[in-house]
Amino acid sequence: MTAAVTSGIAAPLGFKAAGVSARIKASGAPDLALIVSDSPATASAVFTTNRAQAAPVLVSKEHLDRSQGQARAIVVNSGCANACTGDEGVAAARAMATETARLLACPVDQVLVASTGVIGVALPLDRIRAGLPGAVTALAADQGAAAARAIMTTDPFPKEAAARVTIAGRDVVVGGMAKGSGMIEPMMATMLAFLTTDAMVPKTLLDRALREAVHDTFNAITVDGECSTNDSVMLLANGASGATVDDESYGAFVEALRSVCLDLALGIVRGGEGATKLVTVTVTGAASPDEARRAAKAIANSPLVKTAIHGGDPNWGRLIAVAGRAGVSFELSRAGVRIGETVLFEEGRPHDENAPRAARYLAGKEIAVSVDLGAGSATSTVWTCDLSAEYVRINADYRT
Amino acid sequence: MTAAVTSGIAAPLGFKAAGVSARIKASGAPDLALIVSDSPATASAVFTTNRAQAAPVLVSKEHLDRSQGQARAIVVNSGCANACTGDEGVAAARAMATETARLLACPVDQVLVASTGVIGVALPLDRIRAGLPGAVTALAADQGAAAARAIMTTDPFPKEAAARVTIAGRDVVVGGMAKGSGMIEPMMATMLAFLTTDAMVPKTLLDRALREAVHDTFNAITVDGECSTNDSVMLLANGASGATVDDESYGAFVEALRSVCLDLALGIVRGGEGATKLVTVTVTGAASPDEARRAAKAIANSPLVKTAIHGGDPNWGRLIAVAGRAGVSFELSRAGVRIGETVLFEEGRPHDENAPRAARYLAGKEIAVSVDLGAGSATSTVWTCDLSAEYVRINADYRT
Repeated sequence: MTAAVTSGIAAPLGFKAAGVSARIKASGAPDLALIVSDSPATASAVFTTNRAQAAPVLVSKEHLDRSQGQARAIVVNSGCANACTGDEGVAAARAMATETARLLACPVDQVLVASTGVIGVALPLDRIRAGLPGAVTALAADQGAAAARAIMTTDPFPKEAAARVTIAGRDVVVGGMAKGSGMIEPMMATMLAFLTTDAMVPKTLLDRALREAVHDTFNAITVDGECSTNDSVMLLANGASGATVDDESYGAFVEALRSVCLDLALGIVRGGEGATKLVTVTVTGAASPDEARRAAKAIANSPLVKTAIHGGDPNWGRLIAVAGRAGVSFELSRAGVRIGETVLFEEGRPHDENAPRAARYLAGKEIAVSVDLGAGSATSTVWTCDLSAEYVRINADYRT
Repeated sequence: MTAAVTSGIAAPLGFKAAGVSARIKASGAPDLALIVSDSPATASAVFTTNRAQAAPVLVSKEHLDRSQGQARAIVVNSGCANACTGDEGVAAARAMATETARLLACPVDQVLVASTGVIGVALPLDRIRAGLPGAVTALAADQGAAAARAIMTTDPFPKEAAARVTIAGRDVVVGGMAKGSGMIEPMMATMLAFLTTDAMVPKTLLDRALREAVHDTFNAITVDGECSTNDSVMLLANGASGATVDDESYGAFVEALRSVCLDLALGIVRGGEGATKLVTVTVTGAASPDEARRAAKAIANSPLVKTAIHGGDPNWGRLIAVAGRAGVSFELSRAGVRIGETVLFEEGRPHDENAPRAARYLAGKEIAVSVDLGAGSATSTVWTCDLSAEYVRINADYRT
């Protein structure tokens, strides 16, 4: 049903993108991205649950309310998060939308805004104003990759994805791009992810599809357990394919949307700050799906687990120790641990003789660990990366 | 009231200690400690809340129950945690107590046991049996320092403390020793800490005093947010001073006990794995003491806060971002951040112009940060250390 297509955010019909430098970043790297739909699109978004919400989050919520879920464009800058910037920050986010709307000749409340970068520094509005005309000029259907580059901060590579699905006999494309790569444990959304589709999707179905797709993708990853002030996932559906998603085709559409979200989410983890390995954490035997997720997140955020995996050390006792402190039902005498396919602990008894085999497996780049809580039958999978000295280096002097 | 005295766990009258090598550690470093009271002491203890409790925790609880809170001795090994070792592990912990009781000619349920080291490896009982006679021979009032060394794992230095207080006209001494230094966020107790006093303290008062002293000391520290399977704090009161603690003198006794616990707890943080700085995190303006503690712990465990402090980066936005995601009441427009005495954020507005001053302060070794949640009047203080590349190095190859 879902086939890979090449491009990212501008892959669906009727979308254009651009990525340029507005000199917000001292390096001169691209830092201003624009996503534009040819016609007003139905828009859905989920935002950070952090109580210190950044100005662009507040303004985008306001615009979605006022436009009743209609949007023409998303404007994004990197290099400055415009968070903890007081009333001036909100005014700056509004001005960024206003200038974009003026250039595109659309209502201001059909422009959504997003920012990422350092917290607490004023948005350099003059530079954004000066850079926007160039971004509008650069808009094209083949500029998705440039847009994906312009939203990067410490990301080691851009994250793009797309999927094709047949709905009502027509080709529908879902495209997307995202950025990481630190302060990542989305609690409602992720850092910044943008999704487009040329399907026509009624607003209530679009909202439901986005929530469902995000739950097992962006909300199931963690790099460092930190939930940002700016996390946003925005989805635009412009109907340019001529296909409409209804209750019957909803399942196929969600599957395509989820596959794009998972591609992007795993890209964020692979590109996590200092990451050298992608780690899949599966918890089984939990008393409830919620407890399974909670235990899996606790394991995925454990610095002792993450450093052991970084070092290729099959220190399975740390997995049990985290499961035991995760605040969920746990029965040591029925618990188990696997690293890859290797059993290290089963029914409460160690199999340390298997440690050398697990150590050889841990030398790889894609690692799976699973913990059986011995307390029920619910399961959950989350994804994380290892914790390296490079993470410390990146974050010890992020601003300097 | 509380005066410093020199020695540690054997500082109070009527206690002896020893620390020897039983060759549990491959390095040959000391790994077997013994604490003995000349007469049966009243005993109190708090243990880990981790659901994967280690064998020595189970056995010590059982002995405290059976002896109705009487103990003559505590036997401790490092180099092996005897955790996740199944029924064999429990039998080994019992045997360690039995052999100690035989050598000291006391009831087995008057011996408490503790272990620390790698999880999931069988306790080398033969080596412990072979080492115990030497430990008994070495027992002396001046061997507290040797005992403190014998309980170390990755600790960079031993932790000892003592305090003197006058009760009913008599000198009473409280002594203690502790070990860290990873897997530290005690949720009811700490890693391993042992306390002695020559006061006579009725069991109910002793239990209350230990709980109160632990709450603001061992339970207010974190190195890496990990709660161990073996955390134990044990306190023996033998009455050798001739002074009895009653309701009137309780306050003075708790003060002395708390000062010893705080010394040891701060020692654990200063000696945290890879630590280069001691960080005091104070949260004010919280809706309740519980929320204040929760926010302070979230900040103290944030890898982004800890790496910024490690790098001397006054990235105060990270403190706000953590406070905002901590799941507590938080009002951004009334919130504030100080690094040392320098205001970086106040009433929801940034003072980034003060960042250079804060950066100079962060070059020091003892750092205080405070966050005002703007949501009430409750406060809490916790202590942590910075997160360095050395933490990663230590934990990436702990077993290899």
